[in-house]
Amino acid sequence: MTTTEATTTALPEGYIIRRMEKQDYEGVVDTLAVLTTVGNVSKKKFDSIIDYWNSNEFEYRGSKVNLYNPHVIVDTIKNEIAATGNIIIEQKLIHDCGLCGHIEDIAVSSNHQGKKLGKCLIEKLRNVGFQAGCYKVILDCDEKNTMFYEKCKFKRAGVEMQSRL
Amino acid sequence: MTTTEATTTALPEGYIIRRMEKQDYEGVVDTLAVLTTVGNVSKKKFDSIIDYWNSNEFEYRGSKVNLYNPHVIVDTIKNEIAATGNIIIEQKLIHDCGLCGHIEDIAVSSNHQGKKLGKCLIEKLRNVGFQAGCYKVILDCDEKNTMFYEKCKFKRAGVEMQSRL
Repeated sequence: MTTTEATTTALPEGYIIRRMEKQDYEGVVDTLAVLTTVGNVSKKKFDSIIDYWNSNEFEYRGSKVNLYNPHVIVDTIKNEIAATGNIIIEQKLIHDCGLCGHIEDIAVSSNHQGKKLGKCLIEKLRNVGFQAGCYKVILDCDEKNTMFYEKCKFKRAGVEMQSRL
Repeated sequence: MTTTEATTTALPEGYIIRRMEKQDYEGVVDTLAVLTTVGNVSKKKFDSIIDYWNSNEFEYRGSKVNLYNPHVIVDTIKNEIAATGNIIIEQKLIHDCGLCGHIEDIAVSSNHQGKKLGKCLIEKLRNVGFQAGCYKVILDCDEKNTMFYEKCKFKRAGVEMQSRL
């Protein structure tokens, strides 16, 4: 076990964290609705995205890396999806052809809040990034959430700018 | 020609913009050094990343999309790389299984500054994202560069948080 893993916040009893699977469809869609508009995500479309995410591997310094790393926290007692998030691993030229991890779409189900699941999830995704070899892991958040991410070992680094048609 | 393209800032005479190619090796490495530490990027490693970037395609609503879209602006008179940047296209579940574009690693060579090449490059990458079907295009920047990106049709959206080991 690495030092990084040893300091990870423990999940409450009965909860596990693992890579997202096709069986998580309904719980993931419901959980993401806490975050933003999910829209019309059919089971077929969900399955095809899981297949695509799972297939998108590349080689980095002799090891296989998944570009997409969607995760879920599962309440194994109630058999419910409690939280979800992803880390996308980008191959760059800069920093010795280094990798940058992008944490995206963090959502904790309203039925499972107040249990530090968000912190557990961020720590897990950050570890996935660093274990893949990322020299940094970044994410964008609202001003009101910066204190939460500071508790997860993140620091302010810049401004997110957005363009929509 | 779409409305978006019609309003694109014109490149100065003699400059072109196109997808990055293997022949751009030296100019790209020199140009990226303006931005940050590039480190030890051999020609062989550069070529393998170009191959990987070119091969990483996926299907979105019946069309092929490149996940990585590295571009260069070339001064065809001096035969020099003048600027470089990339847009990574992320497949999400949210927003009807929508796409989000991430603009990364924008650099303009110090020999070619003051010619609005940065603005041309950002407009091009933004168009690549929207033409692929992105519902939004985002980027992270320093506070001091926000006014530049506002001129390129971007708005403040949040805070970039970063974690390093």
